[in-house]
Amino acid sequence: MEDNALIVLGCSSATPNSVRFPSAQILHFRSKYFLIDCGEGTQMQLRRAKVPFERIDSIFISHLHGDHYFGLFGLLASLNLTGRKNPLTVYAPEGLEELVRYHFLKTEQPFSYPLQFVALPQEPCACIKKGRGYEIRAIQLNHRVPCWGFYFVEEPKERKIQKEAIDRYDLSIEEVKCIKNGSDLTLQDGTVIPNAELTIDPVPAFSYAYISDTMLKPDIAQYVQGARLLYHEATFLHDLLPLANTTHHSTARQAGEFAQMVHAEKLIIGHFSARYKDLNGHLTEAKDVFENVELASDLNLYTLYKPAYSIWN
Amino acid sequence: MEDNALIVLGCSSATPNSVRFPSAQILHFRSKYFLIDCGEGTQMQLRRAKVPFERIDSIFISHLHGDHYFGLFGLLASLNLTGRKNPLTVYAPEGLEELVRYHFLKTEQPFSYPLQFVALPQEPCACIKKGRGYEIRAIQLNHRVPCWGFYFVEEPKERKIQKEAIDRYDLSIEEVKCIKNGSDLTLQDGTVIPNAELTIDPVPAFSYAYISDTMLKPDIAQYVQGARLLYHEATFLHDLLPLANTTHHSTARQAGEFAQMVHAEKLIIGHFSARYKDLNGHLTEAKDVFENVELASDLNLYTLYKPAYSIWN
Repeated sequence: MEDNALIVLGCSSATPNSVRFPSAQILHFRSKYFLIDCGEGTQMQLRRAKVPFERIDSIFISHLHGDHYFGLFGLLASLNLTGRKNPLTVYAPEGLEELVRYHFLKTEQPFSYPLQFVALPQEPCACIKKGRGYEIRAIQLNHRVPCWGFYFVEEPKERKIQKEAIDRYDLSIEEVKCIKNGSDLTLQDGTVIPNAELTIDPVPAFSYAYISDTMLKPDIAQYVQGARLLYHEATFLHDLLPLANTTHHSTARQAGEFAQMVHAEKLIIGHFSARYKDLNGHLTEAKDVFENVELASDLNLYTLYKPAYSIWN
Repeated sequence: MEDNALIVLGCSSATPNSVRFPSAQILHFRSKYFLIDCGEGTQMQLRRAKVPFERIDSIFISHLHGDHYFGLFGLLASLNLTGRKNPLTVYAPEGLEELVRYHFLKTEQPFSYPLQFVALPQEPCACIKKGRGYEIRAIQLNHRVPCWGFYFVEEPKERKIQKEAIDRYDLSIEEVKCIKNGSDLTLQDGTVIPNAELTIDPVPAFSYAYISDTMLKPDIAQYVQGARLLYHEATFLHDLLPLANTTHHSTARQAGEFAQMVHAEKLIIGHFSARYKDLNGHLTEAKDVFENVELASDLNLYTLYKPAYSIWN
């Protein structure tokens, strides 16, 4: 699976229907697999998506409604059965650790791998994991129970130096390093060569924001400003805004509005209520506000540059 | 869905693969839906099978390995969300009630419906539910943890009286009742008319035995003797008998042997290890011993008289 790609494993809201599983996604990012939410059936969808269980780096659970974590029990048990040895960290709301440990204490063997839980922080936005060249932030959303979104952000990349420049100015390793970081070059005669003449733009850093479940909350936009790929829940169509407000969910139109606030490049909408068979209404409604939008669909793969496609037949 | 029909919702063993869900079945029997085991993903498979959640009469859990009950949490939560009011009884090994109640106490609203758990009895064979014209028995199997099979048995039906006999002998309501129960008729002149001349055979009573998970245990055969439709686990092929013995499972050949001991009419084999992609070996092996056998397959419907067929496309 290519880097900076997202596979939607489930995009239903609370009660699944015959074609949509509960929430779960796999993000392939910095050559790692991150599992975001883990609704019932996640392990079966991972099999279909051909994601090797043992490659999962860590798991992120947004909130403690069953449709976002009931699949964790089966997945953790299967990792045991398949003999995982690598440590696994689950970033989740406080309380999930106790539920999981209590359950397995009563029924199963001890885990074959070190299992660690990290409680999500009570801050509007906080870094929860830092890796080589990226970080992952948790962002407080506005749902009926404490709920977090996740923001996967690559560090800005170094500018690429033009090979001709190295030869022309006989650059030292130290000079190349400075130029890659954006410095101009001052020659011995005092001439300044602007950085733009020495370098080309790097591949833009990738970022992915997962915003589910929540009412539209414009405050949140600042924490994922410039997110290139954005998933936002769109449980209802806008005619059901009162219901969206009561249940602390969003409409497709609001998802589009959020993408506009954030200046995202591409929006994926999901977490659809089981009442909707046909999702064209959602697509149209979001598109009215934000052009580059795709519908989440189970076992579809999403990237920034290509249209989504199914990886399952 | 017709009566005396079984839908296999999942037929994998412990770790599911891309085409087989963990154990769960729906038996339509005496116009009721009985859910047998409830592995992860059961509620999604029920949607695909178009079984209305609220029609489920009761649930039978064979043992406390996750692949047989992890779907219970999602199903019970969805029954809450869809507003079930009818009571629901879960027949399960002791311990499951505490796990379920603890979980929902910590995370969810109280149930919208009366939820009752009945602990499976510590007896080789015991009636656990009696309804109009049928009973359901729990049978102790031989697995690594306490495990039960289930036997759904219709009461023998009354013989059907021939309409001509009523007219010919001018039978009273009382006489008809006795004849239907098998009595001969004694005329006023002392002549005895044998029952066979007055009646025809009734529709044979239906019975279904669910035997999973277990090592082959010939003792069990007596408790499901004459089961017309029989499901028996066949986790492995017979070349892996030592592994079957260690893990307290059966081979396809052993499933056939059990069907022969029971004098079943039709055998369904399932609970296949994820290592097997192609199941023809299982079919051949069981058929060597017992002719009328079908492979379990997710979302297939099984009856006594027709070949299995898929209800999902």
